Amino acid sequence: MTQKLGYLGPAGSYAEQAAILYDLNAEKIPYPSIPTVAKAVEQSEVTAGLVPIENSIEGAVTYTLDLLIHDSELLISDEIVLPVHHNLLVSPGTQKRDIKIVYSHPQAFAQCRKYLEHQLPGVELIASLSTSAAVKRLPQDTNAAAIGNTRAAEIYNAEIIDSQIEDNSNNMTRFVLLSENDSHATGNDKTSICFTFNDDSPGLLYKVMGFIEEKGINLTKVESRPNKLELGRYFFLLDLEGHRTEPEIATTLSAINDEVSELKILGSYPQHG
Amino acid sequence: MTQKLGYLGPAGSYAEQAAILYDLNAEKIPYPSIPTVAKAVEQSEVTAGLVPIENSIEGAVTYTLDLLIHDSELLISDEIVLPVHHNLLVSPGTQKRDIKIVYSHPQAFAQCRKYLEHQLPGVELIASLSTSAAVKRLPQDTNAAAIGNTRAAEIYNAEIIDSQIEDNSNNMTRFVLLSENDSHATGNDKTSICFTFNDDSPGLLYKVMGFIEEKGINLTKVESRPNKLELGRYFFLLDLEGHRTEPEIATTLSAINDEVSELKILGSYPQHG
Repeated sequence: MTQKLGYLGPAGSYAEQAAILYDLNAEKIPYPSIPTVAKAVEQSEVTAGLVPIENSIEGAVTYTLDLLIHDSELLISDEIVLPVHHNLLVSPGTQKRDIKIVYSHPQAFAQCRKYLEHQLPGVELIASLSTSAAVKRLPQDTNAAAIGNTRAAEIYNAEIIDSQIEDNSNNMTRFVLLSENDSHATGNDKTSICFTFNDDSPGLLYKVMGFIEEKGINLTKVESRPNKLELGRYFFLLDLEGHRTEPEIATTLSAINDEVSELKILGSYPQHG
Repeated sequence: MTQKLGYLGPAGSYAEQAAILYDLNAEKIPYPSIPTVAKAVEQSEVTAGLVPIENSIEGAVTYTLDLLIHDSELLISDEIVLPVHHNLLVSPGTQKRDIKIVYSHPQAFAQCRKYLEHQLPGVELIASLSTSAAVKRLPQDTNAAAIGNTRAAEIYNAEIIDSQIEDNSNNMTRFVLLSENDSHATGNDKTSICFTFNDDSPGLLYKVMGFIEEKGINLTKVESRPNKLELGRYFFLLDLEGHRTEPEIATTLSAINDEVSELKILGSYPQHG
């Protein structure tokens, strides 16, 4: 039986590319927002949902972090890292010299700034809601180009004029798979947790990091988000190497639980790469 | 001589409100983006520039953090905390029952979700680039309302139908003043720093936090941003209580400098509240 995989759409989005990379054969269903992907998993419309959590240039995807902290009991069951390549796309037949307008998402413009300055100086940049929505409008306009991925080019029958036009070749997005359950231990896993404090938080964070350090556990990420109740009060999100069922990790999580307010284990899952 | 203060515009923005709160008599000049505010300070068009750095609901303003880390040598010379209150505004004469459309910035919609659901169920929400741009369009449309602040209402001659319509009454934004120099010690100061590591970063962060803990210095904030070169590598931003010229702080900063790569002192300035 093929699994049903929800993803942050529309078709042609980078999340769809990640879904293809994750499971080519799954039935893939686009949802219009991160909360609707999560809702589809909660209501068993799909077995799992794929959403972005971090980009190497832009940083954390705060919608996903806040969903995990505040609004959902779903767990992270896997991670997928996707290299992000942008392309200059046009309607078949449009030449580079004809281009007067470029459509794309503002982040894509920011990530291709040098290319645009050198290759298309003076063109008008018009923002769209997603790179794939930008590619979709191309057939209406022979003087326009769009910045998008190869999958969007395929779906909307666009022609690739230049590929890998991003300024930074290390542009990668990390996606997580949200499910009702997390994953079994594989021997090379990661555990994501979040917590807050009733009291002066950043000082206590040091104490919690001490529990982790003491056991020689590798900490791969520290992130903070507002607790939304008071300016200067935070939730902290930590990624640890190891599975929550391994004794060292289990003992550490229990020590952390005694120190913090609202420890939430966001899931253990195979580590990428 | 009145000082010239740049701020993230347009007129009627929350940054303008913060600028008024900071210095009522200063000449206030709006700029269209965070980088253009910084540039105006660097080119001495204004003596200082006011930009948002953190909101109690949305979290860090990553453009400002990345500017401070990567793109500017300006220093933080002060901080201003502004309570954010949203209002439902209309053209004079428009009644609540006439409203079919509401214009605003997507973040303002998100922050007034409950009010909109209860008071204006079924109205169409149309996104604009800023709350103040939303208020500006009101005169063209007698069936429309906008969510914005009292200053925008004043500038664009709009009528306030309901005030403080935000879901969360703890909605606050922290702004920082960017200048060529930071501030002299007042006895109640804060110092902002950022740094990265050549090596496995979050483990070393623990060591750096140890230097701070050891001296009994209060850490009020820990934030991470991607180093933009590699997924999973970060710059860390820390706020410490105390002025960089105080001996305890100076010694600690020197110990941190020996441990990290690229320590940048972002400024010492009087602590809010």
